[in-house]
Amino acid sequence: MADPLILHEYARSGNCYKIRLTAALLGIAIERREYDIMAGETRTSYFLEQVSANGRIPVLQIGERFLPESNAACVWVADGSALMPFDRFDHADMLRWMFWEQYNHEPNVATLRFWRAFVGEEALTEAQRAAIPAKEMGGLAALALMDRHLEGRDWLVGQGVTLADICLFAYTHVADEGGFDMAAFPAVQAWLERVAALPGFVAIDAR
Amino acid sequence: MADPLILHEYARSGNCYKIRLTAALLGIAIERREYDIMAGETRTSYFLEQVSANGRIPVLQIGERFLPESNAACVWVADGSALMPFDRFDHADMLRWMFWEQYNHEPNVATLRFWRAFVGEEALTEAQRAAIPAKEMGGLAALALMDRHLEGRDWLVGQGVTLADICLFAYTHVADEGGFDMAAFPAVQAWLERVAALPGFVAIDAR
Repeated sequence: MADPLILHEYARSGNCYKIRLTAALLGIAIERREYDIMAGETRTSYFLEQVSANGRIPVLQIGERFLPESNAACVWVADGSALMPFDRFDHADMLRWMFWEQYNHEPNVATLRFWRAFVGEEALTEAQRAAIPAKEMGGLAALALMDRHLEGRDWLVGQGVTLADICLFAYTHVADEGGFDMAAFPAVQAWLERVAALPGFVAIDAR
Repeated sequence: MADPLILHEYARSGNCYKIRLTAALLGIAIERREYDIMAGETRTSYFLEQVSANGRIPVLQIGERFLPESNAACVWVADGSALMPFDRFDHADMLRWMFWEQYNHEPNVATLRFWRAFVGEEALTEAQRAAIPAKEMGGLAALALMDRHLEGRDWLVGQGVTLADICLFAYTHVADEGGFDMAAFPAVQAWLERVAALPGFVAIDAR
């Protein structure tokens, strides 16, 4: 029997959602365990010692083992499935988009959503406020890069949907909550609709 | 015959070095093409159109195809080698460290090195200066997490060296240039020495 899967998560986080979406598309069941990150529930000694020393969600628990980092968890879940290209270049190119997501997209697009829609601008520190213009520019550049890449393409890598699409969908489809005007990115919008139409698709707020 | 490999790079960048180190450990030849990032050579229309729309090095050119993102390029180079765990969990756990590197380690440890040793503190913008304390805290937290993990372990994942070690070595071994006191992290220091003793190892400044 396969190890049971438990997702240690904060449901509204796009990083947690991408793991649920990957599992849903592949028909894999995952038990969910919610932590209130606004109340510091991932920085308790229990969480740091038992779940992840990094004090962040998501963490995918596979039997007795714990796997942090959303994109690594997606790779574990999708291992051997059609969401993972078999071709050597396409496989690396899928990871390229996933590393790019964590470096160029998430710290801008997701952080502004978190600051504006979760924390509230009035509660930000001075340093966070000072970082907003650079994050707006970085987020716009990331969305523009995706838009140009998706012009004339259905999916980010090769000819079919891969984990790269799922991982980038997570925060792109809620980028408006961070203040980004998605009307400027029509190819991204068409791609978002293609992902949302996949068989087995679940929304970020699905229980 | 295999496609020739060309690394579009800035040699002092740890992200470029990790690809060269991976190739060297595996005995794979890579041609090097240098861009002066301080002079904007990765933001020219040639670079953006022909090499990478993201305007950043490294980019690994494989024949006629271009693969950005350092860790994805390392995966392509090491595909099928002993640096890539075959076990499903260990493989995902290796990627876990590589995603963690790009999110929690590089933006703190590498950015402070870049600001202090390359740009110079006097040339930083106000927003960059405001970000220094958070990056110092983030970098120390990342190094401390590695140190605790490496206590009693030789390598980050499983029982042998993997790509995770190579990718984390790149900026950890020059973290002192960003102002980090590495004496505080003895398990990291012992691990750095293990990596540097690997057969085929090349230094960051090797030509």
